Amino acid sequence: MTTDTGRVRLTPDERRSQLLDLGVRLLATRSIDELSIDLLAEEAGISRGLLYHYFGNKHAFHEAVVRRAADDLIEKTAPPAEGEPLERLLTSMTAYVDYVVANHQGYLSLVRGAAGGNETIRKIYDEAHAALTDRVFREDAQGQIIADTPATRLLVRAWAAMAEEFVLSWAVEPEAMTRDELLAVVTGALPALVELLPEK
Amino acid sequence: MTTDTGRVRLTPDERRSQLLDLGVRLLATRSIDELSIDLLAEEAGISRGLLYHYFGNKHAFHEAVVRRAADDLIEKTAPPAEGEPLERLLTSMTAYVDYVVANHQGYLSLVRGAAGGNETIRKIYDEAHAALTDRVFREDAQGQIIADTPATRLLVRAWAAMAEEFVLSWAVEPEAMTRDELLAVVTGALPALVELLPEK
Repeated sequence: MTTDTGRVRLTPDERRSQLLDLGVRLLATRSIDELSIDLLAEEAGISRGLLYHYFGNKHAFHEAVVRRAADDLIEKTAPPAEGEPLERLLTSMTAYVDYVVANHQGYLSLVRGAAGGNETIRKIYDEAHAALTDRVFREDAQGQIIADTPATRLLVRAWAAMAEEFVLSWAVEPEAMTRDELLAVVTGALPALVELLPEK
Repeated sequence: MTTDTGRVRLTPDERRSQLLDLGVRLLATRSIDELSIDLLAEEAGISRGLLYHYFGNKHAFHEAVVRRAADDLIEKTAPPAEGEPLERLLTSMTAYVDYVVANHQGYLSLVRGAAGGNETIRKIYDEAHAALTDRVFREDAQGQIIADTPATRLLVRAWAAMAEEFVLSWAVEPEAMTRDELLAVVTGALPALVELLPEK
């Protein structure tokens, strides 16, 4: 609610949520390690003490920001409710490419932190990844692109690793191909890989 | 050279090389962090002091073992000199699958160490990866499977990430598909992905 003087009165939960959004924005162009309480305090124009009040400690602060960023990714890449499975996958992958490009440093540090043995980061990364890959099966429940079997579960996981590497590399070398070309390959790769499985 | 009593007299270089081979064998079923000078000393039946003499310190020891393991991977996955490009790729990928399965723990820790910001491990991993992906272009110099362009360089890198994730996941869940099915997908994926690139 905005008062007459233009100031906004927020509940503690709203304030915390606003600070998390700021953290996610700061993370876009930084690694997780570079995202400090000091920086957030400076950008938010509030004291470090108040941030510790909201987040407890640096570890909990990083966890909360990364979790918000992962939720943001899942939400932004939600496919539309209607349409052919492959068309909906393309829409979802388009949002994924745009997300990774816009949040390159933060996303890269999430991938690396997860692989590098930070257990909290790995857990959030794995949950986000599982949500994205489960979605492939949930959104294609009739199996028009892909049936749900142990083999196709491995395949989707490998496909997601390919898409991730492709988009992360393309983000630093965008002149190598157009965004549409990239999308044609990463989206078309899923049915193409399924096609290679003997005895579908 | 074996003496009459069956003992082997080795030069210091040969001895160091033998110790590295033992280190690589121990790494197969362990992460890099689990591979200690103590363990190697015990398995080799020599003193820790002698190992420090050969390797200097723990860091240099890990670096030497991981480098030897990476060289081993590159050598074992060398394609045959003759044959169709796709057939030779299949032979190479078969050796890759067998290597990753036989050295699962060590390979996984290499991948994770590289991603997790250990600069030495990352450098060795990147060199090995570059050797393997460069090979795709070198071995197919006529471009029968793939032409050498900035776009296909990105594509091969993404394909390699897919193959790595696929094989690492399959190694812990081998009942999901047969080795031949896995090989059909990871090998066939390369030309299939190229096919998806518009304007080859």
